[in-house]
Amino acid sequence: MQSYYLQKADENLPVLHTTVIRPEAEPRPLTNGDTMVVDLGNHYVGYLSFHVSHPHWYNDAPLRMELRFCETARELEDDYNDYHGSLSRSWLQDELINVDSPGVYKMSRRYAARYILIKVLYTSQPVALSEFTFEAVSSADMTALKPYDTTDEELAAIDRVAVHTLRNCMQRVFEDGPKRDRRLWIGDLRLEALANYYTFGDVSLVKRCLYLFAAADKNPYGLMPGYIYENPIFVSGYWHILDYGFMFVNTLCDLYSHTGDAETFRDMCDVAKRILDSAEANKDEHGIVDNTCGDWFIDWCPGLHKRTAFEGIYLYTLERWSRTLEALGYPEAAEYRARLEAGRAASRKYLYDAEKKAFINARDEYQYSVHAAAWMVLGGVVEGEEAKEVLLKVMNDGESVKPFTPYMHHYAVDALFCAGARAEAEQHLRHIWGGMVKDGADTFFEAYVPTDPDFSSYGDRKMNSNCHAWSCTATYFIRKYGLGQD
Amino acid sequence: MQSYYLQKADENLPVLHTTVIRPEAEPRPLTNGDTMVVDLGNHYVGYLSFHVSHPHWYNDAPLRMELRFCETARELEDDYNDYHGSLSRSWLQDELINVDSPGVYKMSRRYAARYILIKVLYTSQPVALSEFTFEAVSSADMTALKPYDTTDEELAAIDRVAVHTLRNCMQRVFEDGPKRDRRLWIGDLRLEALANYYTFGDVSLVKRCLYLFAAADKNPYGLMPGYIYENPIFVSGYWHILDYGFMFVNTLCDLYSHTGDAETFRDMCDVAKRILDSAEANKDEHGIVDNTCGDWFIDWCPGLHKRTAFEGIYLYTLERWSRTLEALGYPEAAEYRARLEAGRAASRKYLYDAEKKAFINARDEYQYSVHAAAWMVLGGVVEGEEAKEVLLKVMNDGESVKPFTPYMHHYAVDALFCAGARAEAEQHLRHIWGGMVKDGADTFFEAYVPTDPDFSSYGDRKMNSNCHAWSCTATYFIRKYGLGQD
Repeated sequence: MQSYYLQKADENLPVLHTTVIRPEAEPRPLTNGDTMVVDLGNHYVGYLSFHVSHPHWYNDAPLRMELRFCETARELEDDYNDYHGSLSRSWLQDELINVDSPGVYKMSRRYAARYILIKVLYTSQPVALSEFTFEAVSSADMTALKPYDTTDEELAAIDRVAVHTLRNCMQRVFEDGPKRDRRLWIGDLRLEALANYYTFGDVSLVKRCLYLFAAADKNPYGLMPGYIYENPIFVSGYWHILDYGFMFVNTLCDLYSHTGDAETFRDMCDVAKRILDSAEANKDEHGIVDNTCGDWFIDWCPGLHKRTAFEGIYLYTLERWSRTLEALGYPEAAEYRARLEAGRAASRKYLYDAEKKAFINARDEYQYSVHAAAWMVLGGVVEGEEAKEVLLKVMNDGESVKPFTPYMHHYAVDALFCAGARAEAEQHLRHIWGGMVKDGADTFFEAYVPTDPDFSSYGDRKMNSNCHAWSCTATYFIRKYGLGQD
Repeated sequence: MQSYYLQKADENLPVLHTTVIRPEAEPRPLTNGDTMVVDLGNHYVGYLSFHVSHPHWYNDAPLRMELRFCETARELEDDYNDYHGSLSRSWLQDELINVDSPGVYKMSRRYAARYILIKVLYTSQPVALSEFTFEAVSSADMTALKPYDTTDEELAAIDRVAVHTLRNCMQRVFEDGPKRDRRLWIGDLRLEALANYYTFGDVSLVKRCLYLFAAADKNPYGLMPGYIYENPIFVSGYWHILDYGFMFVNTLCDLYSHTGDAETFRDMCDVAKRILDSAEANKDEHGIVDNTCGDWFIDWCPGLHKRTAFEGIYLYTLERWSRTLEALGYPEAAEYRARLEAGRAASRKYLYDAEKKAFINARDEYQYSVHAAAWMVLGGVVEGEEAKEVLLKVMNDGESVKPFTPYMHHYAVDALFCAGARAEAEQHLRHIWGGMVKDGADTFFEAYVPTDPDFSSYGDRKMNSNCHAWSCTATYFIRKYGLGQD
């Protein structure tokens, strides 16, 4: 099947659209040690070229320069020699180049940047850098972008930044982040696909990404890796994440519910089924799914206890899966519906404290988290007013564990809408995504902790990806629920 | 005329021949901080590519590496951060690259190197570098190389290294040095052209370079710049050197004497004439040429007094020029012959101490130099046994000023041959060029001071060009005079 899936992925390879950005730059000649900053005016993903000339005399020696590509203004001030994060320093977007001759110099790598900091290290003659040209690339077709009109300036700004985030992450696949890791992750894919249905509507790219995961090597439990590389060659990643496996199932169900494309669903139905069946086979004595067939992600929140949240994701997925099978007339739909009901009952019994209106983490040390509550609500373990009470209580609790990523904030907002707390959902959306806009975001960040702007999941804020796919979904909520349309 | 000269230069643009070098390299996987050295087996000029792979797992992050291209082994140990020379640090051949994906990586710049030092700065997975390929380029046609056979191992080695030096400097023009400055200088051109007549016999490349200088902007005295750039655009250099102007004249005369090509001579005859006439118009009260119309080079020897040597170059040039005009029936030949005789008489009267058999530097503080003596001999101011005595005395004097470059050593050897001191000429050739071979030269150096291997004209040996055009002429003497054929 792998070659079939890869062929289907290839059939859906998108065209990349190019937008040429021509930033103005100060024409002051530079000499050894001089710096300049080129501001693209917005965050873009693409390729830089510029013209090198020597206004006084022809350059006698190569021109040696450092270039740093910054997603945000604060990166201009960061000390890259003081990097101490857990991921490789090589993700930081800085280059050292030697230019032999005047003329147009084209840099071959792709960068994600708004600002470009240039430092002339050595030149034998003052050098003028001009005609900066940034060829921004994206597979998002701006002419296909659905309109969103509102008089609410904050929502308009949030929507605009969200759409721009999505656009910059839409390349040959839905990338997680065009600065880092520049690859296809399931968790990001699912949220990008959702935002995409309400904005660019590029169904083909969603199909391509699903087929790529269907083609990936599976672990003994049928779980695909959390991410894949597809360029220059197809390579399966190595981290098998069970909740991401479920997000593959959800993305497949979403595709059917948004497009009615039963053929694509059937193509990958068995892959999805295997993931769910493995989870079902790995339950503990109370009927709660264990993590023996893969890792769990949930959120980058440090020290998070994940068991309850994970069970919620399983139930949320089972619900969508059962509904899709029912719609398409699969006889096994009833079996999955039965598992869903059993799981909800077990969760209510073993993971819920009905008196305190709080979810606990079975087997783990007790931890009071938004994560657990949101996913239990999305999994249908509590509903209606009870769900709303559960959610608001934990979200407003000063001591509870809160999400660190817009990825988890998405599901918290989703849970609020699910519980009928529309006003609180919008309020939380404004708090998180509006907060980033107030902090000057051109695109939404990988991690956002309002009380700790330096938070990084990798031990150094310089490593953060500040245009990150999983943070684009504000536009999904705004457009789906018609926020700002009152 | 400029467009005509440039057109003629273009007509003689050479084809570059490629030789693919595939050095063996240790396949040990490298991780952060690891280094490896690739030895090309000889000095070459060209383009590097290599294959990047990750034997354990697909690279999770870009691979960041430093590469240093070294002409000699000692550059491997040099500290590039401690550069303190007078020319731009950017000439040192080191790069920092970021490689996004496994596969073949091609570096776009041209390098001159035997050794490549590679240091892995950051990689998320051990990396294997393999399939190193160096595409060596030269316009020298190895199938056209005239044979030289000898049983004298030292001369065979000197000739081989000299030919290889010439080959590596023969590119789109006769470059001075493929590491630095990578352009066309007249002084180098003249010596390369001479060596070329006895080896590759590429007349077209000599014509091309002469036409390029004929096209260059002249100073008010008709003097062309000492060097030009021709790629990517034609640009005249800015340093007008009078002895290099004379070398243009000599190169034009050499072309006629080696090929009988009167048409090319006539094309540029007026350019040459203007240079000589300007010198004649700038004589002092004794009839010795002054330096009011351009700088003088002669040699990189620090503190050298140049007046007498320079007058010798003028007379040497006048002699060759008069002879060529006579052969081609130019009526003005007699006028130049008369200038030559007058100059010789003036030099003998004002620049020579016949008793001491020594040349002095009029107007300068007295300085006893090989430079003055060699050029006065080549200028025909003294001849035969007297010339031999003058030369050997100054060359063997422990206190006399000696040449620092093989460029000046060439003319010292030439003067010895001119004075009939064949054995001493060969001995000096073995001392200088054989000395470099004994020091491990793959190609001959820009500067060579046997007692000071760290000598640099630029204040730091790292800046020296160790494959330098003007040092290739050992093969000219060996082949012209049949050394090692006894």
